[in-house]
Amino acid sequence: METLARIRFLLIDMDGVLYRGGTALPGAPEFIQWLRRQRIRYLFVTNNSTRTPEQYVERLAQLGISAEAGQILTSSLATRAFLQNRAPRGTPIYLIGQEGLEAALLGDGYFVHDDRSPRFVVVGLDTRLTYEKLRRATLLIRAGATFIGTNPDRTFPSPEGITPGCGAILAAIEAATEVAPVIIGKPERWLFEAALQRLGAPPEQSAVLGDRLDTDIAGGKRLGLTTLLVLTGVHGPEHLRAASVQPDAVFADLPALLENWERTLSETRRPQLSQKGTHE
Amino acid sequence: METLARIRFLLIDMDGVLYRGGTALPGAPEFIQWLRRQRIRYLFVTNNSTRTPEQYVERLAQLGISAEAGQILTSSLATRAFLQNRAPRGTPIYLIGQEGLEAALLGDGYFVHDDRSPRFVVVGLDTRLTYEKLRRATLLIRAGATFIGTNPDRTFPSPEGITPGCGAILAAIEAATEVAPVIIGKPERWLFEAALQRLGAPPEQSAVLGDRLDTDIAGGKRLGLTTLLVLTGVHGPEHLRAASVQPDAVFADLPALLENWERTLSETRRPQLSQKGTHE
Repeated sequence: METLARIRFLLIDMDGVLYRGGTALPGAPEFIQWLRRQRIRYLFVTNNSTRTPEQYVERLAQLGISAEAGQILTSSLATRAFLQNRAPRGTPIYLIGQEGLEAALLGDGYFVHDDRSPRFVVVGLDTRLTYEKLRRATLLIRAGATFIGTNPDRTFPSPEGITPGCGAILAAIEAATEVAPVIIGKPERWLFEAALQRLGAPPEQSAVLGDRLDTDIAGGKRLGLTTLLVLTGVHGPEHLRAASVQPDAVFADLPALLENWERTLSETRRPQLSQKGTHE
Repeated sequence: METLARIRFLLIDMDGVLYRGGTALPGAPEFIQWLRRQRIRYLFVTNNSTRTPEQYVERLAQLGISAEAGQILTSSLATRAFLQNRAPRGTPIYLIGQEGLEAALLGDGYFVHDDRSPRFVVVGLDTRLTYEKLRRATLLIRAGATFIGTNPDRTFPSPEGITPGCGAILAAIEAATEVAPVIIGKPERWLFEAALQRLGAPPEQSAVLGDRLDTDIAGGKRLGLTTLLVLTGVHGPEHLRAASVQPDAVFADLPALLENWERTLSETRRPQLSQKGTHE
């Protein structure tokens, strides 16, 4: 499969690809080990802004997947990269969000929290949201602060059911300010761009592996990445048939992807070896 | 002015018509006294769901305008009327809102608060809003409860600046549920319909007096009411020129309206009197 043969860098969505709820999906640890042996460089990429990389390392370890903090890229870290490219150390920001966002923006003191005259209002999911936070964000954006949203997801699944995500909070502030946020996460470009930058990866050798057509696949296409869909998450064959955006390749699950990829590599390598042999 | 001559019932918006911020607008007390002398029946009608009628009576009294609680119709009371027409006593509801909405729906025990399986989720402005309330509303609406919003106003003015209104909270819940609320307040029909019902007023003898083209005037036109705009509130001549919805008559302020109306009535009465005179 030509599509797989050229991939040297892989951006891996986690939820719906490596695990679902609290359970690892079949073949996830083996797939990551295989990537390492093949020297295909990868990052774990997520729209979720609430956790720190260290928390993800721990979570993956519980599922049998070993990862380092430097291999995790959250929308909070991509927001940090986006803002750091545009503002000097000491820039004041007003933040609505949880531990992951606070650590990424305020942890090392690069940005300073300010509820009077910040340059940016940065909003992620915050389960401690209050009206006062919405009011403050509205006043500050109306006074000229730039409105940034970590990710557009309007909902996320919880044990009790589907609950409001960052995108629902953004909708309230957008309604009150008449200003649309700059959104960092998938399907917008900034999270994937930060990932490519961290890997030093050229888009033509890079792929995104995800379970959602509207974020992973649409976002990957926007940057010219190869797009790989697995059907173990949110979107199944019926969504695929109805979708206007189509991935470059679709696999039932990670074992199916691994099998295809391995075969592709052994086929492309064998002729090269025998060619070399004939020249010696 | 023929438009004014036929009006026997008047729905009066308060903010921007009778007062602005904490100050009475010129001629407001005199205008209300004049309506009373003319036996033109009126209600004070507001999209604001947070206060009770008694609180409005007090507020108007401070501005020199005497009113009774029965002359105040808030979006909370219109929500009560709307729901009472559709659900029996004892119906469970989940409520997000302030004193005005709680008093209207729960005060006499007609509706019962229930956060497990309510038939309606009713949302007004709530300055004590939390993420937990948004989450609960989302779960309940996704489980089948009907989503009701008291009013669509996305912002309201406060001493500190423009702040999030009920419509901003509705936007968050709509984003998380993919369900649009039934909205009771202007420009939707239910608040004005409740007002006409309370007055026993036929639409063709009724008018709305307001300061906003998008709510008062648009909502009045929807019900076939005569629409009167005063330019003492949100919308000025420049908005009027740009608007697709046009009121039946426009006045600089309440004294100008009163002067016109008085002249109209004296002109229409004089010929009637002299006609009568000639027959006697």
